[in-house]
Amino acid sequence: MMEHTEKAPNGVDLEALIGTVAAVKAAPSLARFRFRVHNRWVAGAHSKTTIQGFYGTGKEDASRKNPFVLEGDEPPVLLGGDAGPNAVEAVLHALASCLVVGFVYNATVRGIGVDSMELDLEGDLDLQGFLGLSKNVRPGYEGIRVICRVKSSATDEALQDLWAYSQEISPVMDIVRNPVPVFSELKKA
Amino acid sequence: MMEHTEKAPNGVDLEALIGTVAAVKAAPSLARFRFRVHNRWVAGAHSKTTIQGFYGTGKEDASRKNPFVLEGDEPPVLLGGDAGPNAVEAVLHALASCLVVGFVYNATVRGIGVDSMELDLEGDLDLQGFLGLSKNVRPGYEGIRVICRVKSSATDEALQDLWAYSQEISPVMDIVRNPVPVFSELKKA
Repeated sequence: MMEHTEKAPNGVDLEALIGTVAAVKAAPSLARFRFRVHNRWVAGAHSKTTIQGFYGTGKEDASRKNPFVLEGDEPPVLLGGDAGPNAVEAVLHALASCLVVGFVYNATVRGIGVDSMELDLEGDLDLQGFLGLSKNVRPGYEGIRVICRVKSSATDEALQDLWAYSQEISPVMDIVRNPVPVFSELKKA
Repeated sequence: MMEHTEKAPNGVDLEALIGTVAAVKAAPSLARFRFRVHNRWVAGAHSKTTIQGFYGTGKEDASRKNPFVLEGDEPPVLLGGDAGPNAVEAVLHALASCLVVGFVYNATVRGIGVDSMELDLEGDLDLQGFLGLSKNVRPGYEGIRVICRVKSSATDEALQDLWAYSQEISPVMDIVRNPVPVFSELKKA
């Protein structure tokens, strides 16, 4: 974790960030990333995801010595063993953590100091879709609400503008708000 | 974790699952769920999400004694401290764990035994969108590929049919493939 110093305002290495943007501008192919996860079913609703390598800046990344392991499960009322948050909760986590990165990085570029930032997200989901009880009910979230509370000495206008921009360039906000093509295949092992 | 027994094939309490479907059929309002997460920024790209309560089956759930905590961060090449997977990796995790639940629950209802299930997901992302370097590049995934390997004595046809159905009723697949409205607000703390 970087300290909040003059060299790293908001804990962001500003020089490195500016360098990254310039490098990608000069060679756009550096911006091509491929992220990956591997998931293994345990039992019932419980599965484990391991996350380690990815491709980006023209090469396979080797910086992670150990994989991250995320547990997915359902709570008892959804017939799981509650070994981890469920999949739609994980989506809200992804959206929150994505908005934070975009907000803090761009705050830093704009010279805005962020003292604290907290987000509350909620999503409404009608289980009739997942249970196959109605074709008129979508399986996913009908809607998501995000409330972001920021402490900063910047003006409200500057923060609102930054917040709007953070959503615009947020990969997960884009994934949630807009269609992503998914290719899928089942192979008998 | 439930054992794979006659009462709990695939580790799923089949009686409870059938009971849940019947209960929701009789009273569709039970199917209304609201999931929530709280995220707190730490520094730089690092934030922590806590996940505990949710609303469903007509009441606030109180089964989780402790919150789950998920770390979000970026790897060094994306200027983070690598305290956790990044947001778009978390999306792939969410999608994988969602597909597992739908597949295993519906396999159980159909009398299909699942011996093992593993998924590999990858997503292509051009960072020019996030970096604000091109309006023609979307910030999110351009495409996601899911390869699912299942060991089962069921026929290939039965497994392919189940796989297709699992995607159809998957909340996260719906969220990824189709637009979800997001309301957002920034408040100065």
